[in-house]
Amino acid sequence: MKELRDRILRDGRNLGNGILKVDSFLNHQIDPALMDACGRTLASRFAHVRATRVLTAEISGIAPALNTARHLGLPLVYARRERPVTMPDQVLLTVAPSHTKRRTAELIVSPEYLSAADRVLIIDDFLATGQTILGLARLAEAAGATVVGIGAVIEKVFEGGRQHLAVLGVPVESLAAIEDMSDGRIVIA
Amino acid sequence: MKELRDRILRDGRNLGNGILKVDSFLNHQIDPALMDACGRTLASRFAHVRATRVLTAEISGIAPALNTARHLGLPLVYARRERPVTMPDQVLLTVAPSHTKRRTAELIVSPEYLSAADRVLIIDDFLATGQTILGLARLAEAAGATVVGIGAVIEKVFEGGRQHLAVLGVPVESLAAIEDMSDGRIVIA
Repeated sequence: MKELRDRILRDGRNLGNGILKVDSFLNHQIDPALMDACGRTLASRFAHVRATRVLTAEISGIAPALNTARHLGLPLVYARRERPVTMPDQVLLTVAPSHTKRRTAELIVSPEYLSAADRVLIIDDFLATGQTILGLARLAEAAGATVVGIGAVIEKVFEGGRQHLAVLGVPVESLAAIEDMSDGRIVIA
Repeated sequence: MKELRDRILRDGRNLGNGILKVDSFLNHQIDPALMDACGRTLASRFAHVRATRVLTAEISGIAPALNTARHLGLPLVYARRERPVTMPDQVLLTVAPSHTKRRTAELIVSPEYLSAADRVLIIDDFLATGQTILGLARLAEAAGATVVGIGAVIEKVFEGGRQHLAVLGVPVESLAAIEDMSDGRIVIA
């Protein structure tokens, strides 16, 4: 996706240790038009999987997943990191190491909004090690649902997440694949 | 906004103590089409304030604020609850009591994305006591920016937030004003 690629090369910052700062358009400030274009593209790539729900993780997955869900005409569920008072006592919960926060975080979904009848499209901002996405897939499976696709805005190819997701046997799409961030570079496939 | 009002009356749950559960379309599962309609309506109500940025608080403010920002053609900044590793050491930070979590939470914005030249439209999911929105206004003022409007999807009139916001002297709009939640009821103006 050229628009995204150009934006990463122009406004992304390589902070070292594989950390890509995209706070100016994706992770703190959001460019709504760019996110709309990302959502439209992800929706078109997954139009064939016949998803019934889109699933993401708070916080930074919400913007791309919401736009993808809107273009597909599907509801979006975002996994919470903490159980709010509005959630039932019995929840779907898993833990996943957070790739930027250097600690383990909970992912919590209410069984009210994921069922065995669901075909789940997982969308996140980053595909890095794949651990958050694997956690979301475990939540879907715990609900008896079927994961039918995985999409990310930015993939860090060098972190190997795509190989970890292969066990799921579903299509994996990213809109910008970063192959190398060594020596301060940002190399997009 | 009739579509929203009907949805609250149909799917909202009064959990007591003034807690309105809207997890099926706003706070955990999101209805993208409804959020798009909310964003379009808020954008039209604030078209005249000539905002340059939309500001919200993570997490549940993101969906309505993102749609509002998209319809206005403006960037969205969401205040973080924790400082991520990508943020500079020097940040704009305030604390505000969280209305549903019964504790104080930090609101953090990078000065990279709010400046003295900004005219800030604050959008959130709920206007309850107004404390989160006042916190966002303090962040905008700390950046030297001007707050030009405040919009919320759902207002809990009985919590008095609108009076607390009066000191800001800007237009305050909500799309559904809940006047009474006593005795298990949900009464919308």
